[in-house]
Amino acid sequence: MASRSEEYDVVVVGAGIVGLASAYHILSQNPGCQVAVVEKAASAGQGDTAKTVAGIRNTFTSEVNRVLSETSIDFYKHVQDELKFDLHLELVGYLWLLTAELAKQFDSVIDRMKKDGIALKLWQPDQLSKMLPRSRIAIDSGDEEAKIMGLNSIAMGLQGLKCGTIAAEKLVEFYEREIRKMGGSILYRERMNSFILEPRPKLGLPKEPLVWQNAKVEGVVTTRGRIRAEQTVVATGCWSTDLLSHLGIDSHVRAKKRQVFALKGAGVSDLLFSKGFNEQGVLPMTLIPPRLIYMKPNRSEGTFWVGVSDYVGRPFTFEEEPAAEDDFYTYDIYPVLSHYFPNFKDIRPFNKWAGHYDLNTIDGNPYIFEDSGLIVADGTSGSGMMKADAIGRIVAAVQAGKDMATLYGGKHFKVAKLGVETRQVEPEEFVI
Amino acid sequence: MASRSEEYDVVVVGAGIVGLASAYHILSQNPGCQVAVVEKAASAGQGDTAKTVAGIRNTFTSEVNRVLSETSIDFYKHVQDELKFDLHLELVGYLWLLTAELAKQFDSVIDRMKKDGIALKLWQPDQLSKMLPRSRIAIDSGDEEAKIMGLNSIAMGLQGLKCGTIAAEKLVEFYEREIRKMGGSILYRERMNSFILEPRPKLGLPKEPLVWQNAKVEGVVTTRGRIRAEQTVVATGCWSTDLLSHLGIDSHVRAKKRQVFALKGAGVSDLLFSKGFNEQGVLPMTLIPPRLIYMKPNRSEGTFWVGVSDYVGRPFTFEEEPAAEDDFYTYDIYPVLSHYFPNFKDIRPFNKWAGHYDLNTIDGNPYIFEDSGLIVADGTSGSGMMKADAIGRIVAAVQAGKDMATLYGGKHFKVAKLGVETRQVEPEEFVI
Repeated sequence: MASRSEEYDVVVVGAGIVGLASAYHILSQNPGCQVAVVEKAASAGQGDTAKTVAGIRNTFTSEVNRVLSETSIDFYKHVQDELKFDLHLELVGYLWLLTAELAKQFDSVIDRMKKDGIALKLWQPDQLSKMLPRSRIAIDSGDEEAKIMGLNSIAMGLQGLKCGTIAAEKLVEFYEREIRKMGGSILYRERMNSFILEPRPKLGLPKEPLVWQNAKVEGVVTTRGRIRAEQTVVATGCWSTDLLSHLGIDSHVRAKKRQVFALKGAGVSDLLFSKGFNEQGVLPMTLIPPRLIYMKPNRSEGTFWVGVSDYVGRPFTFEEEPAAEDDFYTYDIYPVLSHYFPNFKDIRPFNKWAGHYDLNTIDGNPYIFEDSGLIVADGTSGSGMMKADAIGRIVAAVQAGKDMATLYGGKHFKVAKLGVETRQVEPEEFVI
Repeated sequence: MASRSEEYDVVVVGAGIVGLASAYHILSQNPGCQVAVVEKAASAGQGDTAKTVAGIRNTFTSEVNRVLSETSIDFYKHVQDELKFDLHLELVGYLWLLTAELAKQFDSVIDRMKKDGIALKLWQPDQLSKMLPRSRIAIDSGDEEAKIMGLNSIAMGLQGLKCGTIAAEKLVEFYEREIRKMGGSILYRERMNSFILEPRPKLGLPKEPLVWQNAKVEGVVTTRGRIRAEQTVVATGCWSTDLLSHLGIDSHVRAKKRQVFALKGAGVSDLLFSKGFNEQGVLPMTLIPPRLIYMKPNRSEGTFWVGVSDYVGRPFTFEEEPAAEDDFYTYDIYPVLSHYFPNFKDIRPFNKWAGHYDLNTIDGNPYIFEDSGLIVADGTSGSGMMKADAIGRIVAAVQAGKDMATLYGGKHFKVAKLGVETRQVEPEEFVI
């Protein structure tokens, strides 16, 4: 294929959910703008966006996280209810099953969220036992297995009401369609190899010594040629760590494998269609202790997707094709899952996959910052799907040189809050 | 060599300046403590500690950086003047040569430092021209080369007085000798391969699933066997990024190559022995614009060591044997250096070497934090030598479970300030 050179106002690297939302809002807010999205895969949302469980929640202690997720969820509702684009958005809730120890640990966090107006419902253990008859909400004092494993009775159910699930691929489809309508280009099967870094102004000196000139990124070099652009948006999730590392710019994020296992079966269906938590008559996205294994209900397919984030012991790595590990289900998930929910007894995954967390290990909020002609949006920390629309709006504001972004519903947001030197966020305390 | 297993209270990984100062203070404060320092090289201080230019300064805008450097410098003076251990410590000053643009940019920074009681002296351009007769303090308006390169006249000289130089190898020797005196072990030619990570308590379950247990580092595995310890201090500079990455713990630092070039010659000597700046009759450690090339005077050998930090365009990389690049001197340093100081005309380095910066790209202050049995001390950001003693004292306080460290001179320091979630530092604004 012949190498070509193209020029745009803005090139967005990555057609994942953050890149798409960014391109969409740049185009919406600035109709004349020439925007190209560069994507290495053959279609949009095939990277970590496709690997998400796509839970959405507004239950964050960081005000920034809360505002980003609430306004994004509102926008998704608008798309589904008013624009009539079905995103499979279902506000079935998130249900945290907490031991006495965890309930105590999260006590101030729960208080804080209530004060912040987050819609929460508390369930008592006896209520949960009735609604989930085959579960072990109360762990028997003679339960030797539980004792060895350190599992304790559930002392409280905490349900977030403005929470639920969405279909990642539908949200991708929505943004992609709108980008095309507005004349944006999405260049598939085009892998970014490097940034075009040039001094400004060019001095014509030997080797153009960047060390004492101002260097600026002027676009990207891909597998198909050069794409020059005034601004380059880096929306590559945790791949940004490697990409920016070549420039000597810190992404401020770390990549960690995230594994999902799909489960089905007769007992699974019983649990899935637990009544009383929501009008859909389905178990909410449920989290079980001690380390918060999450179970996402998929009503239409009658399955659960389960996973758990591991902290110490799981290396930071970015892989092109990360693989889910059978042993991880067998040893890290299954013993706890099947103990609290004997419905899962002997059930093995019928499908599994892995992506990455794009972790901000310091405060758990996203980063959106400018550096040398780049606009970097990363650090979604496992909650990118539920914040993507707001992130896209903030990227668009930064691209337009504005100090304030307008989020869905009209809320104003100071873009510098998500920057590096100017950062103003509270560390997220309600981490799954 | 037969594999052996040893046990200590504390194992310190790395016999660089931070590891040595840490081991020294742990032993001083806690005489019964069994401490081993593990070092891959054949002797102490052979990594990035050996590659430093070993300038020391107290000119920081961050209060934390200032306190760490001032108390460390005071301790080094105490060692040299009272303990009579010659560290080749010479307070010849740091001299920033600033263009009008840089002077303006640093205006508030200079004000701030004055208010903070940092001893500073300002020099006018005509004074500098007299003291440095062969230099181009004033750049001629007809100087085409300067115009192309964007070089401007020096508008101000800013001299930090409690600043100067030290011999890194002497400070290493001091700490090493004291560690041995106090019964500490330094295990050379022993490379750390991995951490011993174990669940606590051990459940005896298949694969000991760390994800829902508490995992703790219980020492290290080296090329010679296992060293178990209650606490493991990671003092490996920017190598910590790779080491901790295997555990999935963020080092919060990035490695970038740091190159030093040694210059000598007749013209060089003239400049070196410039009078008027200090009682030693030598040019201070001098920094020249636009991107602050630094020149360290070595009075006894009649040489300068020069270098410059590059920002965008220089990748983050950690190499076992980083190499200084001739081209970096030729294209990035020489044109500016020889323009301001024609003394360097046609002078090529007679020696060169490279190490790494251990960069905290967010606030430029060190990190000292605990995680899962580890105490990590990193992020010295190019100023480790001048803060090492204070860092060692803070590590020792953390090791002893104290909230406050006592720095040299009796100043109390809240150790949580350098932690991650509890961090309380001002971003450093006076970066070289």
